[in-house]
Amino acid sequence: MLALREPSLGPCFGMKGGAAGGGYSQVVPMEEINLHFTGDFHAITAANNTLTALLENFRFYNRGKPEGIKTVLMKRCLDVNDRVLRKIVTGLDTPSNGIPSETGFVITPASEIMALLCMSEGLEELRQRIDDMLLGFTFAGEPFLTRDLGVTGAITALLKDAIQPNLVQTLEGTPAMIHGGPFANIAHGCNSIMATKTALQYGDYVVTEAGFATDLGAEKFFNIKCRKAGLQPAMSVLVATSQALKLSGGADEKTMMLPNDAALSKGVRNLEKHISILKSFKQKVLVVLNRYHFDTAEEIAWLRNWCLEKEVAFAVNDSFRLGGEGALEMAQAVVDICNEPSQPIQHTYELSDDVETKIRKIVTTIYGGTDVVLYKKAKDMIKKIKALGLEHLPVCMAKTQYSFTHNAAISGLDGDFKIDVDDLVISRGAGFIVAVCGEMVRMPGLPKIPQANFIDVVDGKITGVS
Amino acid sequence: MLALREPSLGPCFGMKGGAAGGGYSQVVPMEEINLHFTGDFHAITAANNTLTALLENFRFYNRGKPEGIKTVLMKRCLDVNDRVLRKIVTGLDTPSNGIPSETGFVITPASEIMALLCMSEGLEELRQRIDDMLLGFTFAGEPFLTRDLGVTGAITALLKDAIQPNLVQTLEGTPAMIHGGPFANIAHGCNSIMATKTALQYGDYVVTEAGFATDLGAEKFFNIKCRKAGLQPAMSVLVATSQALKLSGGADEKTMMLPNDAALSKGVRNLEKHISILKSFKQKVLVVLNRYHFDTAEEIAWLRNWCLEKEVAFAVNDSFRLGGEGALEMAQAVVDICNEPSQPIQHTYELSDDVETKIRKIVTTIYGGTDVVLYKKAKDMIKKIKALGLEHLPVCMAKTQYSFTHNAAISGLDGDFKIDVDDLVISRGAGFIVAVCGEMVRMPGLPKIPQANFIDVVDGKITGVS
Amino acid sequence: MLALREPSLGPCFGMKGGAAGGGYSQVVPMEEINLHFTGDFHAITAANNTLTALLENFRFYNRGKPEGIKTVLMKRCLDVNDRVLRKIVTGLDTPSNGIPSETGFVITPASEIMALLCMSEGLEELRQRIDDMLLGFTFAGEPFLTRDLGVTGAITALLKDAIQPNLVQTLEGTPAMIHGGPFANIAHGCNSIMATKTALQYGDYVVTEAGFATDLGAEKFFNIKCRKAGLQPAMSVLVATSQALKLSGGADEKTMMLPNDAALSKGVRNLEKHISILKSFKQKVLVVLNRYHFDTAEEIAWLRNWCLEKEVAFAVNDSFRLGGEGALEMAQAVVDICNEPSQPIQHTYELSDDVETKIRKIVTTIYGGTDVVLYKKAKDMIKKIKALGLEHLPVCMAKTQYSFTHNAAISGLDGDFKIDVDDLVISRGAGFIVAVCGEMVRMPGLPKIPQANFIDVVDGKITGVS
Amino acid sequence: MLALREPSLGPCFGMKGGAAGGGYSQVVPMEEINLHFTGDFHAITAANNTLTALLENFRFYNRGKPEGIKTVLMKRCLDVNDRVLRKIVTGLDTPSNGIPSETGFVITPASEIMALLCMSEGLEELRQRIDDMLLGFTFAGEPFLTRDLGVTGAITALLKDAIQPNLVQTLEGTPAMIHGGPFANIAHGCNSIMATKTALQYGDYVVTEAGFATDLGAEKFFNIKCRKAGLQPAMSVLVATSQALKLSGGADEKTMMLPNDAALSKGVRNLEKHISILKSFKQKVLVVLNRYHFDTAEEIAWLRNWCLEKEVAFAVNDSFRLGGEGALEMAQAVVDICNEPSQPIQHTYELSDDVETKIRKIVTTIYGGTDVVLYKKAKDMIKKIKALGLEHLPVCMAKTQYSFTHNAAISGLDGDFKIDVDDLVISRGAGFIVAVCGEMVRMPGLPKIPQANFIDVVDGKITGVS
Repeated sequence: MLALREPSLGPCFGMKGGAAGGGYSQVVPMEEINLHFTGDFHAITAANNTLTALLENFRFYNRGKPEGIKTVLMKRCLDVNDRVLRKIVTGLDTPSNGIPSETGFVITPASEIMALLCMSEGLEELRQRIDDMLLGFTFAGEPFLTRDLGVTGAITALLKDAIQPNLVQTLEGTPAMIHGGPFANIAHGCNSIMATKTALQYGDYVVTEAGFATDLGAEKFFNIKCRKAGLQPAMSVLVATSQALKLSGGADEKTMMLPNDAALSKGVRNLEKHISILKSFKQKVLVVLNRYHFDTAEEIAWLRNWCLEKEVAFAVNDSFRLGGEGALEMAQAVVDICNEPSQPIQHTYELSDDVETKIRKIVTTIYGGTDVVLYKKAKDMIKKIKALGLEHLPVCMAKTQYSFTHNAAISGLDGDFKIDVDDLVISRGAGFIVAVCGEMVRMPGLPKIPQANFIDVVDGKITGVS
Repeated sequence: MLALREPSLGPCFGMKGGAAGGGYSQVVPMEEINLHFTGDFHAITAANNTLTALLENFRFYNRGKPEGIKTVLMKRCLDVNDRVLRKIVTGLDTPSNGIPSETGFVITPASEIMALLCMSEGLEELRQRIDDMLLGFTFAGEPFLTRDLGVTGAITALLKDAIQPNLVQTLEGTPAMIHGGPFANIAHGCNSIMATKTALQYGDYVVTEAGFATDLGAEKFFNIKCRKAGLQPAMSVLVATSQALKLSGGADEKTMMLPNDAALSKGVRNLEKHISILKSFKQKVLVVLNRYHFDTAEEIAWLRNWCLEKEVAFAVNDSFRLGGEGALEMAQAVVDICNEPSQPIQHTYELSDDVETKIRKIVTTIYGGTDVVLYKKAKDMIKKIKALGLEHLPVCMAKTQYSFTHNAAISGLDGDFKIDVDDLVISRGAGFIVAVCGEMVRMPGLPKIPQANFIDVVDGKITGVS
Repeated sequence: MLALREPSLGPCFGMKGGAAGGGYSQVVPMEEINLHFTGDFHAITAANNTLTALLENFRFYNRGKPEGIKTVLMKRCLDVNDRVLRKIVTGLDTPSNGIPSETGFVITPASEIMALLCMSEGLEELRQRIDDMLLGFTFAGEPFLTRDLGVTGAITALLKDAIQPNLVQTLEGTPAMIHGGPFANIAHGCNSIMATKTALQYGDYVVTEAGFATDLGAEKFFNIKCRKAGLQPAMSVLVATSQALKLSGGADEKTMMLPNDAALSKGVRNLEKHISILKSFKQKVLVVLNRYHFDTAEEIAWLRNWCLEKEVAFAVNDSFRLGGEGALEMAQAVVDICNEPSQPIQHTYELSDDVETKIRKIVTTIYGGTDVVLYKKAKDMIKKIKALGLEHLPVCMAKTQYSFTHNAAISGLDGDFKIDVDDLVISRGAGFIVAVCGEMVRMPGLPKIPQANFIDVVDGKITGVS
Repeated sequence: MLALREPSLGPCFGMKGGAAGGGYSQVVPMEEINLHFTGDFHAITAANNTLTALLENFRFYNRGKPEGIKTVLMKRCLDVNDRVLRKIVTGLDTPSNGIPSETGFVITPASEIMALLCMSEGLEELRQRIDDMLLGFTFAGEPFLTRDLGVTGAITALLKDAIQPNLVQTLEGTPAMIHGGPFANIAHGCNSIMATKTALQYGDYVVTEAGFATDLGAEKFFNIKCRKAGLQPAMSVLVATSQALKLSGGADEKTMMLPNDAALSKGVRNLEKHISILKSFKQKVLVVLNRYHFDTAEEIAWLRNWCLEKEVAFAVNDSFRLGGEGALEMAQAVVDICNEPSQPIQHTYELSDDVETKIRKIVTTIYGGTDVVLYKKAKDMIKKIKALGLEHLPVCMAKTQYSFTHNAAISGLDGDFKIDVDDLVISRGAGFIVAVCGEMVRMPGLPKIPQANFIDVVDGKITGVS
């Protein structure tokens, strides 16, 4: 049984297209899943923006009072790729339009409401997490929570149905819980705990995903989601493609489909790093190559051999072209490995570590860097986190997916780097501290020629969404 | 059978509360209708903001080219009351965040997509109207439409289901088509033509609404909706309350529930004006008093008599308290009047009138003013409208609901005023020209203590939405 | 002896060029007067912006306190034509950059410090007026003055030398006090009282100026400057050019140099209106035609005759071409008229009139309109002005110079208009209430090809400034 | 003879107070020097903002054309401490207010015009440097210079007098050229070359200054100013105070006046680092202790001995209390050292080094760090600099004065750091490339209680400026 994330409308109309799988490896009804689906994202967007509107309204009527709001932490959200909404100024033109503020929109999958919905195990926990959200600080220096606004009930009401997991199926009838959709570079990158646990009630084997590579998705999956939910995954599947490996090895984007031994043999150093990250959690690992039609037998053989030498299991997955049949090798490998004895997750850090230590352990154990350097804003936030009694929360790293460092312009595979932490953001409702490393964009942009130009309705059917 | 507008989430959490009726005169399921309902508003919001994101993206990649976009006319929208979003600046911080622009959000019911969905009589007309939307002007001075962006299909896809009317019922089982929800001060204020025409297929009598008073809602209902859809309403019901009449007559808001003969007899001058507006369309009129428990028999008798003298039909409606039974007098009066011969609608202006003439006729015939005065921006727009061949479109007045003039600080009942038109806005997709009179806010704010503070989920049921 | 305003750097580099006269009718050293001169404008700019910086700093450190500043009224200024500074948002990027605010720059001649420097009759009065400036309102609703900021001394120190009038001379050696430079459409349009009074100490005849036409400059000169300073001008010279008259009469800008009897005879209606305005103050009037080389004898004769019929004195001024000799006819006429008995100024309104009455009297007596209509913001301000005890201040009208109305798109000579007052601004330090009629721009823009393109330094001499 | 920088008005009203020296070691007339002085700063401010206004005007009229301006690099400036002007959005409200842009003000001493005026050796070079200024880039990707705007002459005209050095004197009559005032953390930190060279014409010994410590001021003095002007300083005086040394050694700000051997002996490590920086330029060094009345004989003796051990000359300066007499020991030491043979400056880098190498050499040789790490924006700029043929320019480091690193929260004395370069800014007119390290603020703020609160005019004299 599957437990996956819901696709976001934004990328669907942008570069990435839909996120319901591809070829014969898909969940259906694909168009509905990719567009409005059951309205969960819309409900989250509405809840988020109703809360910000109520917050700004309180701020407007209480300015100049110590209990008024000095700092607003919460952002608005929209499920769209719109770069111009990243940084905006609101409240302009006349005083009756509210207090001018610099703020911004994040894409709905990067919102705290998305995160806390995914972290909740029922309506009451959802309400509690909404109640706990840190929306800002008052002039008196006090934290200001949703409960201080008195609208927890109203926001919960908007999410009453969205908290329920959605059941769909693959083209071959495998049941799939698709629920929640946080991104993995900035958010915690996992589908909802409710969906995963529901799937575990019904399936013998439950397959879930953790976005981007192991330094981002897997690290958060183990340290945040599994720890919170008490999950013990039996093993990890590390998915690779020949193109990505060659790209990492220095190949050009235009020729990465062609055989290139030099690039491949250099690129596997990246794979090796990801394997070692998974092993740091005491996970058994299966490397899976998602096969493309242009992959040569020689390349596959080379890779299989490389894994053999490294004593890591390896399988080819050809389900895009062949459906379940193409996944047989991989499935058998998974079953075999699951039958071997497991060790409990070894978390990268303890919840009792202080925040800086948590980050340092992630940097040194997972990213392979030498240390962490906090900027003044981050140092100030650590004091604030301590004062608020939130030091015990796990850390959700917000870091570029293009590097093991905070600087997308270098790779960091050599380990000669420290991680700069510019700022810390408290996601009190979601239950973690976000560590912002370098410049992170929480609202994507569209490419020059977006997918939207190819979407249409033909004879009442939507086309071009895939 | 009823054909009504869908409530907007924004006011629901604000001052007004829900819009599904009240007491025993309600449509159900009230909470769902008032909140997410069938997702129509969410789909419109998503369609609107996906279109603006695509537009800004095109602008970003084509700046510095004659075919690039100089002026963006389209606004973003959200179904929320958030005053700080009225006027914003987007695209800040770094050039990769797009081109800095001053823009704003309107509430979803004030968006052009809401308007054109309500004006469409099917998916193909919807697609055509989206295709026709004027999004901006290029540096070369050319109009820039959705079709120039090449994303008509994608936006239509997002509205594929929203264009379908929704069927619900009253507490007593009367079927009600609830579909579309444009506001009447700034938009055209009527539910969708599809819903009205569907209701006309099934009901012997179809009751529909036109928001705010006759100078706003009714004028647009007759001159825009009925003209476009070829509708010929049998009669008009003019709804009054004793409190509103006394308020118009100078009573204080705190004591308007108490008997006040002086205020009442002065306030009916307002009622008289609205009757005369309806008669200007050759409509048969029934004045209905929505009865409150504190209305005295004397007041009602005085009003009935006043109508008698003016030779206008009158009935009391007590359906809030008594349901259908309380509406019997009104219903009988409606049936009686419908049996009398009707005259075709006499439109206030001809479509062949030029834009300034259209507005002047509305000002003199409907508002009772002496003339219209165009500001420079409006004069320039008239030239643009002519150049674009859009002079034949009807005019949708955007005017305060608090006055017959453009200045909310005076009443205008005396007729000693001219209407200032500051600007004209082309809603090419909706099929009308919006005339902006004075300062109009297209995004509401929240009151000091919003309704959201009273909404909750108790035992899985939503409370406080009414 | 002359008492004139200092030129502003902004227009000097823009469309207008310098303001030191022209031809043989000039003050020297022209380049210095037009550029930095004695640094008065720079000192005013520095004083203004130091005050706003101190104000924003106080606001920053006192936000969230009742005595903190809720509303900032004061604007920044620069002596430059820069349209993009009209409306700006400041305080962006991080909280340490201060509180985000919507504000703007006015050109230095439109600043209140310029106005109050011109209204002061010594350093102590200057200090008092700076002390009195209303900078904003606190959260507690109290007015916030310079004295509350505690920096009156520092701002006065920056203006210690600028308050002293500057003495220069014309090409022919006539002494000229050039000091202060408020614009006449938005500010009060007169040079400093100190300069005028100093000139009166030394000259037998003192000639001063009042910017733009009589509805703006003269009205404020009599009702504000003369009233405050106790001045009784002996007479008024109304300057006309054939081109302006023909333009008013409907001639085209490209052919206004050519004879055009129809336009001229229609255009004098404008002149007649200005004569009647001056007479409303009980002034003796001399109409002077500033002669251009293309003016024909017939035109001049026609105009002379027209004045004769209207019983208004008339003279031709040819000093541009001929210097003092060309001004002999005008000078003789001035001397003759000054020898006739004078009446004291009849002010348009009494200081004891309430604000609305003052404006109404200006509208009906000076502009020729029928009434004034206040918008809500202006009505609210009247209450505030009353509460602050400032009703006795004169009114400084801020109105377009292109019309007798507030709408630059119409002329208003027909008298069929009311004046809309959108807002009232308290210039407590300058000692007047500014009535903002329609949209007024207090920061000019540059033309497509600005004068700056023709300015240079050649052999150590500045060229192109004239 | 002295050659010093002009004080900036901003800090004068802020925390720092004036910059004309103190006690008996002052230049006079102090008040005039600290405030408007000869108007140089005002002229630079006017020139800068006239240029930006002309640039924005060109941009406004040429938008949508390939030769139009895509990116504006130039900032506005004001000589004021106003944190809210650091980051602003301009051009708001209506399209006629220009193109909305995110920009900001720097303080006048941080402007490129200040820098290029200080680098110019005459009016013609000034004109050439203005002509060369890179104002932005066109849509076609071309650099856009002042010459492309065609206003070089106009801007030069505004600076015609400001380019001339100003001569004043100390309290004891020593002549002092005070001219130009760039800050040393963000600009190049030296007075004008014209002033220094003029002083060298007249004085036997010329003393000049380089702002902040040796890592900032001295590095730029040698590598930028001396290299450009062909200057060979005879020696360097390194000024220290006991308080600063103890602060560096860990003492508390409140007790740094008290003897504290531990802090002192730890703090000299900082002094040692600065000595070694000066020696890297092959300079002879004299350490001078600016004596305060609370300095103990023991402390001074300890320090003198420490210098002796390090083989560095040492002298005490007591001129604040005693004037020239108090400077005798220092003066004699200077004369003695000047009589010893000198070596030519050894520059930290060659102009022929590429930009990254130049920065790396500064980081490793001067700051003591291990390497430089360029961010993406900086990397892109290097390509642009190469394409523009500007690789030969020296580098002007913009770095916090609170650390040898780019992070003010750590000291960096241990040498275990790399310098992050976020961005490179081309100052083509000034003739250098600015390397922006971390977050640098080019517009200061005011303290909670600014000096302005103590400035006044008493009996016509300015008080409180010191």
